[in-house]
Amino acid sequence: MRSLKVIKVGGEIVEHEKYINEFLYDFSTITDLKLLVHGGGRLASKIADKLGVENKIVDGRRITDKETLQIVTMVYGGLVNKQIVAILQSLGVNAMGLTGADLNLLLSIKRPVKTIDYGYVGDIKYVNHDLLKMILEKGITPILAPLTHDGNGTILNTNADTIASEIAKALSIYFDVSLIYCFGKNGVLMDENDDNSAIEVLNKSMYEEYKKTGIIKGGMIPKLDNAFNALDSGVTQVVITSAKNITDLSSGKCTVVTH
Amino acid sequence: MRSLKVIKVGGEIVEHEKYINEFLYDFSTITDLKLLVHGGGRLASKIADKLGVENKIVDGRRITDKETLQIVTMVYGGLVNKQIVAILQSLGVNAMGLTGADLNLLLSIKRPVKTIDYGYVGDIKYVNHDLLKMILEKGITPILAPLTHDGNGTILNTNADTIASEIAKALSIYFDVSLIYCFGKNGVLMDENDDNSAIEVLNKSMYEEYKKTGIIKGGMIPKLDNAFNALDSGVTQVVITSAKNITDLSSGKCTVVTH
Repeated sequence: MRSLKVIKVGGEIVEHEKYINEFLYDFSTITDLKLLVHGGGRLASKIADKLGVENKIVDGRRITDKETLQIVTMVYGGLVNKQIVAILQSLGVNAMGLTGADLNLLLSIKRPVKTIDYGYVGDIKYVNHDLLKMILEKGITPILAPLTHDGNGTILNTNADTIASEIAKALSIYFDVSLIYCFGKNGVLMDENDDNSAIEVLNKSMYEEYKKTGIIKGGMIPKLDNAFNALDSGVTQVVITSAKNITDLSSGKCTVVTH
Repeated sequence: MRSLKVIKVGGEIVEHEKYINEFLYDFSTITDLKLLVHGGGRLASKIADKLGVENKIVDGRRITDKETLQIVTMVYGGLVNKQIVAILQSLGVNAMGLTGADLNLLLSIKRPVKTIDYGYVGDIKYVNHDLLKMILEKGITPILAPLTHDGNGTILNTNADTIASEIAKALSIYFDVSLIYCFGKNGVLMDENDDNSAIEVLNKSMYEEYKKTGIIKGGMIPKLDNAFNALDSGVTQVVITSAKNITDLSSGKCTVVTH
């Protein structure tokens, strides 16, 4: 099986020209097949502010009303995605920017309202893995914005971490997939104030223990739930690291999540 | 040779939900191979207004400074393009939204400053016709936003009419290409106040005559210059019509431009 790296990079890198350029340069040097999923939430929030549209965030998740959906469609699918594609093309990577609506790559269902109405948020129900495989095998590097569609003409907002893990799982039938979550820290930290305290290897029982003791909390929990779920579904390896480390995943610079 | 329709639809259709839905329904019923190029200038102007960015238009052409480039990248590449793709997917068309940066489809050069500095505007120097051919032959319908790139990491703003004619010309080595420009009127009108006065057939000598007498003027001139240039470069037929008529190009409902 050929190796494939599915890499997710978040909004805090995307919004700084210097950081994104450095990250994309490193990304361009990866010789395995590769696929990038990007965020852009912070930039969307800034543009919503300028447009006078209120940002509603509950438990770290955006409430996507109709106006917000237009903003994230613009910012994720247009501004962020196309700037990444243009930079990668200049670095010799044959990048193609996509949303889940393009080629019906990611079909989702609008999240049912329980206690919270998240609005135009989509939960993925199908990944068009055949087409993604074909694109990758043609030497094309897909750049995925965190948008899906419902098949009835509506774009939906979907968390980028979830898109990365769903794609990684779906492609694990064809490839030896490493799923790499990039964010601002070196990994899952034992001490949130010490970036040199990254846990080298994290298994399920350690995860449960660290959740109980409060070492692991907040936004890291859905990320790690996604990670363990991906491992259970055929993904070879999940790595959590800084966007600075993607070409140097040596000891102390990342957390490897395992069974 | 298989038939291919390259259709350009402008901003005045794109910004109205009802019009764009009707147009895309008609578009979805075309059984030939097809490719859509869309505008979005009016919507970009509205969003620029809301963001407090001045719209600078000279002779019908937008001056694209750095802030305006970000806005058109968002609006053309994100908002307009992805809404069209999602609607077409719901109509059973396997649409894929693209800019000229994606797959290096449209390489351009920043327009040199002569009397006017147009800013981040690109003049096309290369169309990646091999990849477009491959995409079309896989049954995929490309939806092109009016954006190109310079190969050095910068997106550029390029007129949608020009993109449509450059693509039509480049693909005429593989296909029997009809280039269809849609706008708000039935065709090139003898009397601008009478939508039933569309000139049925317009050849080069009639064009020169009508320009002298002032019947043809303004924004129609670059559109027709593009049309004649396309015919000279291998395109079979150029049609100018209303977005309402694309599936009924009968007498009085369009202008056919010929040699």
